[in-house]
Amino acid sequence: MRAVLLNAPGEIVVGEVEDAGVRESTDAVVRVIAAGVCGTDIRAFAGRPGPVMGPACGHEFVGVVEDFGADVVTLRRGEVVVAPFMFADGVCVQCVRGVPTSCRAGGMWAVAAGGAQAEAVRVPFADGTLVPVPVDVTDERIPAVLSLADVMATGHHAIAGPGRGVPGVVAVVGDGAVGLCAVLAARAAGVERILLLGRHEDRLRIGKSFGATEIVTVREGEAAAQVLEATGGAGADLVVDAVGEQEALDTAFAICADGGALSLVGGPHGGIDLMGCFLRNITVSGGLTPARRYLPELLDEVLAGRLDPSPIFEATVPLADAARGYQLMADRQATKVLVRV
Amino acid sequence: MRAVLLNAPGEIVVGEVEDAGVRESTDAVVRVIAAGVCGTDIRAFAGRPGPVMGPACGHEFVGVVEDFGADVVTLRRGEVVVAPFMFADGVCVQCVRGVPTSCRAGGMWAVAAGGAQAEAVRVPFADGTLVPVPVDVTDERIPAVLSLADVMATGHHAIAGPGRGVPGVVAVVGDGAVGLCAVLAARAAGVERILLLGRHEDRLRIGKSFGATEIVTVREGEAAAQVLEATGGAGADLVVDAVGEQEALDTAFAICADGGALSLVGGPHGGIDLMGCFLRNITVSGGLTPARRYLPELLDEVLAGRLDPSPIFEATVPLADAARGYQLMADRQATKVLVRV
Repeated sequence: MRAVLLNAPGEIVVGEVEDAGVRESTDAVVRVIAAGVCGTDIRAFAGRPGPVMGPACGHEFVGVVEDFGADVVTLRRGEVVVAPFMFADGVCVQCVRGVPTSCRAGGMWAVAAGGAQAEAVRVPFADGTLVPVPVDVTDERIPAVLSLADVMATGHHAIAGPGRGVPGVVAVVGDGAVGLCAVLAARAAGVERILLLGRHEDRLRIGKSFGATEIVTVREGEAAAQVLEATGGAGADLVVDAVGEQEALDTAFAICADGGALSLVGGPHGGIDLMGCFLRNITVSGGLTPARRYLPELLDEVLAGRLDPSPIFEATVPLADAARGYQLMADRQATKVLVRV
Repeated sequence: MRAVLLNAPGEIVVGEVEDAGVRESTDAVVRVIAAGVCGTDIRAFAGRPGPVMGPACGHEFVGVVEDFGADVVTLRRGEVVVAPFMFADGVCVQCVRGVPTSCRAGGMWAVAAGGAQAEAVRVPFADGTLVPVPVDVTDERIPAVLSLADVMATGHHAIAGPGRGVPGVVAVVGDGAVGLCAVLAARAAGVERILLLGRHEDRLRIGKSFGATEIVTVREGEAAAQVLEATGGAGADLVVDAVGEQEALDTAFAICADGGALSLVGGPHGGIDLMGCFLRNITVSGGLTPARRYLPELLDEVLAGRLDPSPIFEATVPLADAARGYQLMADRQATKVLVRV
């Protein structure tokens, strides 16, 4: 079968790999209809260290159940399914506790299993991993459903994860796909003021359409002062870091209200002043989103027409043109790219 | 008037200082009847860096209102009051948000105002700071009330602060006064399993009487393995760090369940693996307790006989013998010392 392969930094090709097939009785094989390109993929494409090392690529997919093993009980052949960015057995202590990302038997697509940017994917623990989607393969909501595999689930986690009810003021640092999804999640949660900090006009425009009530254009450290001014010096009750680099973490800390929460969903490649958090009573939350746990409720919202993150997919390419999709994202010409298979 | 003075590390004397008097119209003067010696005082006594620098000492007191300025409206002369370890104006954005420890006009006794281990204390922002206690000066619950000024409020914050409802399993790292109060707070909150990690037999005995269901005697890193075994490998839902040193922080991280929370109330003199928290979905909470906010509810519990942290005061000394009280705590012969004035 054909699959997107990262042969070396900057070198994306579509090549032949071994067909996905059922190996364990709990496996399924899903024929992919849409796969996402994630910032993590672009990180690997750019040669920066991260979980994705190549050659397999992609950890977001929607597809059709083609086959499954004898112990799979929740799926029907031919039905559309969505997978979270990590598979998980669904029955271990971590899964039962609602932290499927910590499942000892689980792992991430393209790292511990095949890549999702491929014609098909072997899905370990199919019952624990996949969520059926009651639509057909031509449904126009497929891109929205695909976003639930990772970025929209991450945006939702950014807001819901800290368990702080509905904050009055949310600030989102970063206008990438995750930041935009956090804006959408904040609006869905009923947050009154949503400040979006970013640099890219196109993305900030999407952010506004997603519910950002105030835009703070990030330019050389003035952002923090602007947010503090806009909040009467208090800062935001909940600050989402959707970037992860030190500069973003510093900004997030600076604009967080004392007694507030930082929600780190960008993957923190830097540090936070722990004593500062102690003195200011700031809670640091966030983490890998337990997408599998959120999927059913978010899927309901998408199918009911109340949640539509699909505008983050600013470009769609066929599998054969995956390299172009990667380049569009690397060049920041598309917030996120959908690969049609 | 007489006051405890730290003239140099290791050198506690009771000396003469200027009488406490009303300076601002929002001040009160409180004649102290009982003051606590805190781990922070002992830190300064031992010459270790911290907020308390001397010569003034003490930030926990219960006393009697002696005088107040023209703008004080909530107090009556002669009534018993308790103060949180920091004064605060009660009306600024931080106070209104429930974070009086971040009040810009506020500060800590013995640092930004007079010490509490003295015959009297000038109280800035008396209305915002003091809480009346409807008992007389001979009431046997005065020590319990005194504990609410800092350590019991801190123990309460350790459990309530993260806002996680009632965790199934709480682990408390550290058997000092704060750790013991966290155990008591966990029991009061209805936590089913409370693991207390410590080294001191006497204190662990108090911990048991406070509600610890399991004692883990800390010896060279075996503690983490013991807690993991006791929790079926999962770890504790909420881990309280009541120590703050790196070894304790490392233990706390190791025994925290994925998806759980660390509650740092010991003042973190060390670091936490932020990427580890991200990957394991661990929330880092805690901070300086907003004691003023918790005081009314905790006072109700004490006066109703449902909460009694007083066993942490293992010794009582008169003001003149404050030096002996410090030495008892420094030598770990008393978990906490009460100074009767």
